[in-house]
Amino acid sequence: MTDYYTEAVHGPHEYLDLGSFALDSGHTLPAARLAYKTFGELNAAKDNAVLLPHMYSGTAAYMETFIGEGRALDPTRWFLILPAQLGSGFGSSPSTTPPPFDRGAFPPVSIADDVRAQHMLVREHLGIERLALVSGWSMGGMQTYEWAVRHADIVERAMPLAACARTPDHDKLFIDVHTELLRSDPAFAGGFYRDSADVHLGLRRHALAFALMGATPDMFRQQVWRELGFASVQGFLQGFVQAYFLPMDPNNLLCQARKWREADVGWGDDGDTATALRRIAARTIVVAFRGDAFFPPEDVEAEAAHIPGADSRVVGSVWGHFTMFDLREQDTREIDALYAEILAR
Amino acid sequence: MTDYYTEAVHGPHEYLDLGSFALDSGHTLPAARLAYKTFGELNAAKDNAVLLPHMYSGTAAYMETFIGEGRALDPTRWFLILPAQLGSGFGSSPSTTPPPFDRGAFPPVSIADDVRAQHMLVREHLGIERLALVSGWSMGGMQTYEWAVRHADIVERAMPLAACARTPDHDKLFIDVHTELLRSDPAFAGGFYRDSADVHLGLRRHALAFALMGATPDMFRQQVWRELGFASVQGFLQGFVQAYFLPMDPNNLLCQARKWREADVGWGDDGDTATALRRIAARTIVVAFRGDAFFPPEDVEAEAAHIPGADSRVVGSVWGHFTMFDLREQDTREIDALYAEILAR
Repeated sequence: MTDYYTEAVHGPHEYLDLGSFALDSGHTLPAARLAYKTFGELNAAKDNAVLLPHMYSGTAAYMETFIGEGRALDPTRWFLILPAQLGSGFGSSPSTTPPPFDRGAFPPVSIADDVRAQHMLVREHLGIERLALVSGWSMGGMQTYEWAVRHADIVERAMPLAACARTPDHDKLFIDVHTELLRSDPAFAGGFYRDSADVHLGLRRHALAFALMGATPDMFRQQVWRELGFASVQGFLQGFVQAYFLPMDPNNLLCQARKWREADVGWGDDGDTATALRRIAARTIVVAFRGDAFFPPEDVEAEAAHIPGADSRVVGSVWGHFTMFDLREQDTREIDALYAEILAR
Repeated sequence: MTDYYTEAVHGPHEYLDLGSFALDSGHTLPAARLAYKTFGELNAAKDNAVLLPHMYSGTAAYMETFIGEGRALDPTRWFLILPAQLGSGFGSSPSTTPPPFDRGAFPPVSIADDVRAQHMLVREHLGIERLALVSGWSMGGMQTYEWAVRHADIVERAMPLAACARTPDHDKLFIDVHTELLRSDPAFAGGFYRDSADVHLGLRRHALAFALMGATPDMFRQQVWRELGFASVQGFLQGFVQAYFLPMDPNNLLCQARKWREADVGWGDDGDTATALRRIAARTIVVAFRGDAFFPPEDVEAEAAHIPGADSRVVGSVWGHFTMFDLREQDTREIDALYAEILAR
């Protein structure tokens, strides 16, 4: 099996035992575990905690990009909690769970399940009553919405980036396309491959779909991949996008993709997303990325209109959804400024 | 085999024998045939001929949508020639050619090959020295560019719609994704399936990729598919997009997709697309569709800047690339007005 999901690659994690964990799908995961990282110290008043859930295909380590001394998310000022998604490859995941819940038999998980596990960590394990901020991009933003709707009494500030509270229909279509590109590899074998590397053709194809939708046509026309040191578009596709996805576990990706596809904070309101969004009490900035093909600004802003007092921002250059990958200094600076702004509220 | 590629479905065609037809790829297609339709009469001066090549997955019949008495492309005024693409399923195609050039062994064809065959029809067979207009959308637009560059002495007016003269890199990525969705169906069998219907899973998946990129996120958010009489997005995807592609032949689609991927009018100028475009002498209007994910207006306009005296237009509502599918009366009227404008020049 791949050594990708190891602390050697992603740094040290802590683990919270969730015990027998009941999932939205009706399944119960025995001996479930939530992986997470923390940076900084929780102060005595316990009012400096910030929760940063991560995106599809990421791990907790991917949110470290936005943390640093002298930056908005400064670990000398804030206690930063970076939870790993269930299914991320850290904590309970298809790739980490023993039979009979292993690999292709790992039960379906929801964004609400993630937030339930994170709530156990924040409230019960760490004893935190208020989160100064919840923020993440893409699926991390979906978890942010779920937190802000479900726990309006806990979330003081929310900043979802490049995400929707309910997955738009065209986005579901993308998920169907990219998951089919994985599943259609005969080596996938219904999720019961021996080694994730056997599914490399599916992983390569899946990566191409992400390159197509994750970046923008402007990025390709202007050959902005040159900024990353590549000499050809093929070099960028293989050396950056496929290199990113190839070491991953297909079942882990599919577990996350399912959560993404089914996401809707309206689940507790008979599917009424707008009513759910009106429950949000957090000071909220909703951030969309220019040219984002997954979560176009229009989709993001249509939802933001339902959040009491929420502000909207559109940022980003030519990287579209990939704006959060820290590829252009100006993009990363812009996001840093947004973190400074929301934390100052 | 499917009865889709029949005159019962697509109306009567004429056929021009091309004899032994040398392709750009170095292959020679024996007993090649070009299928086409005509409407109206060629006048004595032979100055009322209009050539309307069709798009990917289409047939000559698909360009009939834009023809009609009282409309700009009026068959009582113009002699309208609708050529079928090589590989379209009419004329020489993977699905129509006997062994050894049948099915998965059909040789690669280029847009330039199409135009070479159409030139034989126009100049030699019909004896036409000047074309009043060449116009088509998507791959029909690519053929339009090739005509205008290669035969500047013949093409009086050109109006490519929703097309590029050189396929943009992000578009190549889309082609790789949608062709993989077809090829990865085990029933595809390297192109040597017995019946195209056996490859229905691949055709269904391929259709989803087109629904994703062919329409716009706005169309999905506003549920504009309701205008087509569907009650759910799933109904639209199955009843419209999959229903459109399912009867088609995968090898025919892949033959066309390859042409699309390799298209570049710069092939005669060492790949210098801009130099090639500067050869165009036709009065030209370049039309882009708002929100077109295949050929974004920015890509289209960047090329148009190299065409002497060309005007640019951006039209369309929420259907993006599908604007030309005659789905909204206002879109079809807008395109009709453009045909009236170019023909009046």
